[in-house]
Amino acid sequence: MTVILRNARPWGAEAADLVLDGGVIAAVTPAASGPAEPADAVVVEGHGRILLPSFSDAHVHLDSTRIGLPFRPHTGSAGVWNMMLNDRNNWRNAETSIADRAATCLAAMIARGTTRVRSYAQVDTDTGLERFEAVLAARETHRDRADVAVIAFPQAGLLREPGSADILEEALKLGADVVGGIDPCALDRDPVRHLDIVFGLAQKYSVPVDIHLHEPGQLGLFSAQLILERTKALGMQGLVTISHGYGLAELPDSQLRDLLEEMAALDISMSTVAPAGAPLPLRQLAASGVRVGLGQDGQRDYWSPYGNADMLDRTWQLAFTSKFRSDELIEHCVAVATIGGASVIDPQARRLSSEGDRPGLEVGDPAELVLVEGETVTAAVMDRLPGRTIIHRGQVVAEGLELV
Amino acid sequence: MTVILRNARPWGAEAADLVLDGGVIAAVTPAASGPAEPADAVVVEGHGRILLPSFSDAHVHLDSTRIGLPFRPHTGSAGVWNMMLNDRNNWRNAETSIADRAATCLAAMIARGTTRVRSYAQVDTDTGLERFEAVLAARETHRDRADVAVIAFPQAGLLREPGSADILEEALKLGADVVGGIDPCALDRDPVRHLDIVFGLAQKYSVPVDIHLHEPGQLGLFSAQLILERTKALGMQGLVTISHGYGLAELPDSQLRDLLEEMAALDISMSTVAPAGAPLPLRQLAASGVRVGLGQDGQRDYWSPYGNADMLDRTWQLAFTSKFRSDELIEHCVAVATIGGASVIDPQARRLSSEGDRPGLEVGDPAELVLVEGETVTAAVMDRLPGRTIIHRGQVVAEGLELV
Repeated sequence: MTVILRNARPWGAEAADLVLDGGVIAAVTPAASGPAEPADAVVVEGHGRILLPSFSDAHVHLDSTRIGLPFRPHTGSAGVWNMMLNDRNNWRNAETSIADRAATCLAAMIARGTTRVRSYAQVDTDTGLERFEAVLAARETHRDRADVAVIAFPQAGLLREPGSADILEEALKLGADVVGGIDPCALDRDPVRHLDIVFGLAQKYSVPVDIHLHEPGQLGLFSAQLILERTKALGMQGLVTISHGYGLAELPDSQLRDLLEEMAALDISMSTVAPAGAPLPLRQLAASGVRVGLGQDGQRDYWSPYGNADMLDRTWQLAFTSKFRSDELIEHCVAVATIGGASVIDPQARRLSSEGDRPGLEVGDPAELVLVEGETVTAAVMDRLPGRTIIHRGQVVAEGLELV
Repeated sequence: MTVILRNARPWGAEAADLVLDGGVIAAVTPAASGPAEPADAVVVEGHGRILLPSFSDAHVHLDSTRIGLPFRPHTGSAGVWNMMLNDRNNWRNAETSIADRAATCLAAMIARGTTRVRSYAQVDTDTGLERFEAVLAARETHRDRADVAVIAFPQAGLLREPGSADILEEALKLGADVVGGIDPCALDRDPVRHLDIVFGLAQKYSVPVDIHLHEPGQLGLFSAQLILERTKALGMQGLVTISHGYGLAELPDSQLRDLLEEMAALDISMSTVAPAGAPLPLRQLAASGVRVGLGQDGQRDYWSPYGNADMLDRTWQLAFTSKFRSDELIEHCVAVATIGGASVIDPQARRLSSEGDRPGLEVGDPAELVLVEGETVTAAVMDRLPGRTIIHRGQVVAEGLELV
């Protein structure tokens, strides 16, 4: 069904009318001067709202969320392993199934503007494939509302508990889109063995790699270098993502520059959840040409009470933690949260060419769109208002924070 | 007029009924078992919402806000002096008077739950007393809705532009409640002269001192020590606030411990705006017994596009930047944002005795209250919902984000 989107301001510019057809933007014309409307077209009123590419959540844990359930006091203690144990001890006791919870969270994300998702699904000796299958089910529930790539993710490491690698491989046999890894030094204590398993499976099943790297400073740099070496040796340019990369915030300029140069040469991407205190160097990443996506991490789960399924809120958080004040830099955060993440999830997708690039709303671009209220793009990020319309594959899938 | 507040959950506990009379809490009883209602009492329905002490914004710049005006692209460049110049070059060109803007911002703050305020009012050779008088006028506009203390604040320093100190003294003659200072080393380059003027005026006009300290690391520590020495020499215990104190986040543990011990001994308080990247050490401050308040800083002004007049949102920001996940610590942020700030603004007010202290809702406490939606106090902070009722001096002054 052709959609005519009337009176929308692309990236906050002058109002335009758009024709959406075949899942892409088929025409863009100044408002009220557009082409004749096909008789069978659906008209969507932009009401002068800002039009952006839809949000891409490049790093979310749909398999642990409690969004929509009663609020539960936090019981975890510090550290990745302790947090994992807290989750392990509690997640099965939730009021609803993990498949229901993942679907509820995904619905809330879509309703707020996200139509492109890369989600982790924990696989380990406790969970088996239960959480992985739950995320697949949630994806199926919302198959016409969002595209979801699923990462088989060894949250508990690959070497600490016998059988972990076998379960990871099972998930890949069942169609996981991406193979995950985590803190090869700090968690598994044997970075070469850990990474050889991860990259070995990536080769065997022809899938990209996405590695959680919480390791600090020089340790994080060491692990990153091991990842880069394997990416190069295996010819996996464009197919590897380093998530978090907290250590980057602590590196001396010269080391950071060298690392980013190598990452750009190997087309390794990054995802961040905009944490407090260790911001990714967004400006240097953009200058180096490294793809960066934004994600929401856990969503009010056993790890943390934070997270509200709203990528616009998370975009504010990215700007805030980056200490950005200028409109251009705050808009860059929006570009990262939309097109940036899309290019992390799909390396073939359009990517940002520079800090000032505002792509995604031209003829031929995918009709993955969100309308948001706001005077300017920056104002929309600051105000985070609820009056949104979400478009996936050229069709309206949500309005006013509710699915349609 | 006596108010009966029915079915409210103090600090998230079991529902209670409260009698508010004479500006204080006169009675607290389990819900629906309360005392007979006086015939002329006004009944306010809590609807099971959480009852908290109202928010206290201990650090806000009412005199620069553009809340409520069209969004304006940010034009400032980095650094306190450059930002000050950007403000100086632009603030007079706003669409409405500064008195109107300050009143609009204050109204938005009250409507969101703040009834206790300590606001800066810039006084300098450019502004003269115009902004100071505007804040006084805004206070007058809302005199029955909030208590506002006004700081005469030399944002442009005292030594860089001849006549600055005279204007500061003029503001004190006109009734400023507090005398301000700023970065005695980094901005005015002569810390002793700067602080001698500030403390001299404090003595002459019998007012407290509140000093912006953006200075990093060891420089910030040096300035803090000079402030402490003067506090002690002049017997100003309980009457001095260090605002921001970014340098504290960078101090080695032993230096921090010594400084906090001295601050506690002199009863010097602090205020923070929960910035990205340099969190105040809240837990150590609480353990040392140092009073701490939260504030919102500039509110969408010429310094920054951030700020939305919502102290509940800023409380989330305090918890987030402090990396707090446990309910007790997130509730501590609420205690800081309410009672903590109240004790910074008025050293005679009730103060927090420890990290776990949740005071302010007992018989005899001031009837400065806010009802918020939420299952628990932490959930209320995470969700930041709009269904609030605000009570000042025992009377409802706002509901659903609107003044009544």
